[in-house]
Amino acid sequence: MKQSLLFTKTKREIREEEKSLNAVLLIKAGCIDKLAAGIYTFLPLGLKVLRKIEQIIREEMDVIGGQEILMPALTPREKWEITKRWENFDALFKLKGIDDKEYALGATHEEVVTPLAQKFIFSYKDLPQYIYQIQTKFRNEPRAKSGLLRGREFSMKDLYSFHADEKDLNNYYEKVKTAYFKIFERLGLKDITYLTLATGGAFSRFSHEFQTLAASGEDTIYICPKCKIAYNKEIIETITQCETCRLASKDFKEAKAIETANIFKLGTRFSAAFNFKFIDKDGAEKDVIMGCYGLGPSRIMGTIAEINNDKKGIIWPETVAPYQFHLILLSPDKKLAKKAEELYNELIKAGFEVLFDDREESAGVKLNDSDLVGLPYRIILSDKTAKEDNVEIKPRNSEKIELVKIKNLSNYLKKLK
Amino acid sequence: MKQSLLFTKTKREIREEEKSLNAVLLIKAGCIDKLAAGIYTFLPLGLKVLRKIEQIIREEMDVIGGQEILMPALTPREKWEITKRWENFDALFKLKGIDDKEYALGATHEEVVTPLAQKFIFSYKDLPQYIYQIQTKFRNEPRAKSGLLRGREFSMKDLYSFHADEKDLNNYYEKVKTAYFKIFERLGLKDITYLTLATGGAFSRFSHEFQTLAASGEDTIYICPKCKIAYNKEIIETITQCETCRLASKDFKEAKAIETANIFKLGTRFSAAFNFKFIDKDGAEKDVIMGCYGLGPSRIMGTIAEINNDKKGIIWPETVAPYQFHLILLSPDKKLAKKAEELYNELIKAGFEVLFDDREESAGVKLNDSDLVGLPYRIILSDKTAKEDNVEIKPRNSEKIELVKIKNLSNYLKKLK
Repeated sequence: MKQSLLFTKTKREIREEEKSLNAVLLIKAGCIDKLAAGIYTFLPLGLKVLRKIEQIIREEMDVIGGQEILMPALTPREKWEITKRWENFDALFKLKGIDDKEYALGATHEEVVTPLAQKFIFSYKDLPQYIYQIQTKFRNEPRAKSGLLRGREFSMKDLYSFHADEKDLNNYYEKVKTAYFKIFERLGLKDITYLTLATGGAFSRFSHEFQTLAASGEDTIYICPKCKIAYNKEIIETITQCETCRLASKDFKEAKAIETANIFKLGTRFSAAFNFKFIDKDGAEKDVIMGCYGLGPSRIMGTIAEINNDKKGIIWPETVAPYQFHLILLSPDKKLAKKAEELYNELIKAGFEVLFDDREESAGVKLNDSDLVGLPYRIILSDKTAKEDNVEIKPRNSEKIELVKIKNLSNYLKKLK
Repeated sequence: MKQSLLFTKTKREIREEEKSLNAVLLIKAGCIDKLAAGIYTFLPLGLKVLRKIEQIIREEMDVIGGQEILMPALTPREKWEITKRWENFDALFKLKGIDDKEYALGATHEEVVTPLAQKFIFSYKDLPQYIYQIQTKFRNEPRAKSGLLRGREFSMKDLYSFHADEKDLNNYYEKVKTAYFKIFERLGLKDITYLTLATGGAFSRFSHEFQTLAASGEDTIYICPKCKIAYNKEIIETITQCETCRLASKDFKEAKAIETANIFKLGTRFSAAFNFKFIDKDGAEKDVIMGCYGLGPSRIMGTIAEINNDKKGIIWPETVAPYQFHLILLSPDKKLAKKAEELYNELIKAGFEVLFDDREESAGVKLNDSDLVGLPYRIILSDKTAKEDNVEIKPRNSEKIELVKIKNLSNYLKKLK
């Protein structure tokens, strides 16, 4: 992409009253725009990040047998009445349509997926099933001041599993844990993300959250330093020792964290409500056992920005960066501009993701902008580097500069990957 | 995908009261599920179709310089008040959130994209810009009885262009026409899709629709048989002769059609409302000139189903089919099952898109299901074909059957593409 054509520009200062670090960084970089509190547009650079995060999640869901569907955002009141959540679910957006039909904007989709699965699952032979979607969700959030961390409209991956018995649910639940850690690994967040025990339900003592350490996190967790399991503040008073290694809870380490994912054994909570039964091997009619597994791509994007930055702007991890390389022409010379354009075309042809700063701006502006946008590698072509047929390469996350011959550039970049 | 694992099953009969042909076909095939009137879930097979349609559109938008973004569905009332459409826009879903904040669910996005573009466009140097999204839209439709053709929640590609002058808008408008015909060509709809003149606005006498012939179409168009331009019924009384070739309008042919796309010269309608100006080359402040260009992926999916079918089910065009090949094992023989599985793995490894019917069902059920699902090619492995190391290949849209040696299958299938 040529930066001279890019829809967005970076912003040095933000006029709007926006205090959340991730939103400030992402708005300055031209990744998102704020339409209203908790409601953002994803701009060209930001949408690329979001899509890469979603694709990583999609691939790992597919590995564990997930089948992707897309459920509606408009969900009829009747479904929520059946589960008694029309009145009780926290922060549902509600609206009325033609003929006084009432809808909630989906904040979660048990009310849709359960009767849906009921149309296709009749016997133990039809089980298990693993269904997920990556979809826009809505919550009528009272506090929507944390940028992408707490949106009124946000992207969510929600997976639902259906099982004949508890043992099968437990097996799959562990598989999802592994898949989630794989996702956090690919997102560069694994080392600071903790499997965290949290409030369970009628069906299991605990649910599990994935909490990613961040100073701005809304959650407080207590980490067992021995086995790296954490406990959410909401249950810590009920814990005297680590569930895994028996270390006394007084030795846990307190930390602030962002809940980036959660998994929950629903049991028969929803199948019972919808009278969703199957015929088991023994001929008996039984309630289907369910699990649900959430992970928010837009919240993850906010978390990544919140964690990966310096005073100058965002530092995108390679796996989710909008482009890998920022090719910057630092010269008013027409001949060099032509050379830069050739180099850009060559890199694109070789399959590299390149943002090419071909604008008529000062070196200062271009270098500042490059740091704000935060692509993993900056490639500078200037009068000085061109003299020796070089470009200068610097990773965004270090000060180490290398000179590389232009003719060797393609091979050099390939090795970076 | 192994059909034994597929979440969905085909349905011979539909219990729900559903009269629209596309919805009946798509529900029977297990492509969509109806949650409420005009509100559908896209199931694994259907979501693949939708994504392929979206990807074709995306690629052609990128060819004409479109930059993809993603705007929110929740749009604040204030924006709609500025354009005086809060009360006047047809079929807006409206809702209230925390602190009595009012929102419309986006049915179109001029109210969001105009103030957004205003944040990045200041001078003629920043123009033109072409911004699009592929996003879920909402309309409080009084009549939502046409399946995917008229949804209360639906997928839409909306492109907005921003120009310094009318000439530049006109040039781009023609480019979009060409891109749209390219899209219809790739979707297999070009020959039955007509550029159709329809009501314009203050800025231009006509807008343009793309109308695709279909018996179930809600629109009536009048086609000039000489130059293939059509006229929407809403304006036909004002037309005495063809705008292009001067043929008398009495010689036009009447036809039923589905409006699959529309393009519109907005002029300064929205830029004036938002006071969105730029500094031109001559130093003067001028209103930005805009165009908007819609095309609905889910409506296109409904149109394709509506047009491509026979008594037995859908006949997917290759470019949008959920899978290209339906490999069907017709034998209870364990050894042959193993051979079929090997063949399936081999085809997947070679990069083919294959749905493998490995279920323990009768030949009748499997062949019926295969026609219902409607993949472009059926590949049968049975005791009979296996005797000569053959499979039997039949396109969904013809009765022509060919026997192909199993060892030559990969090469044979490659040539089909």
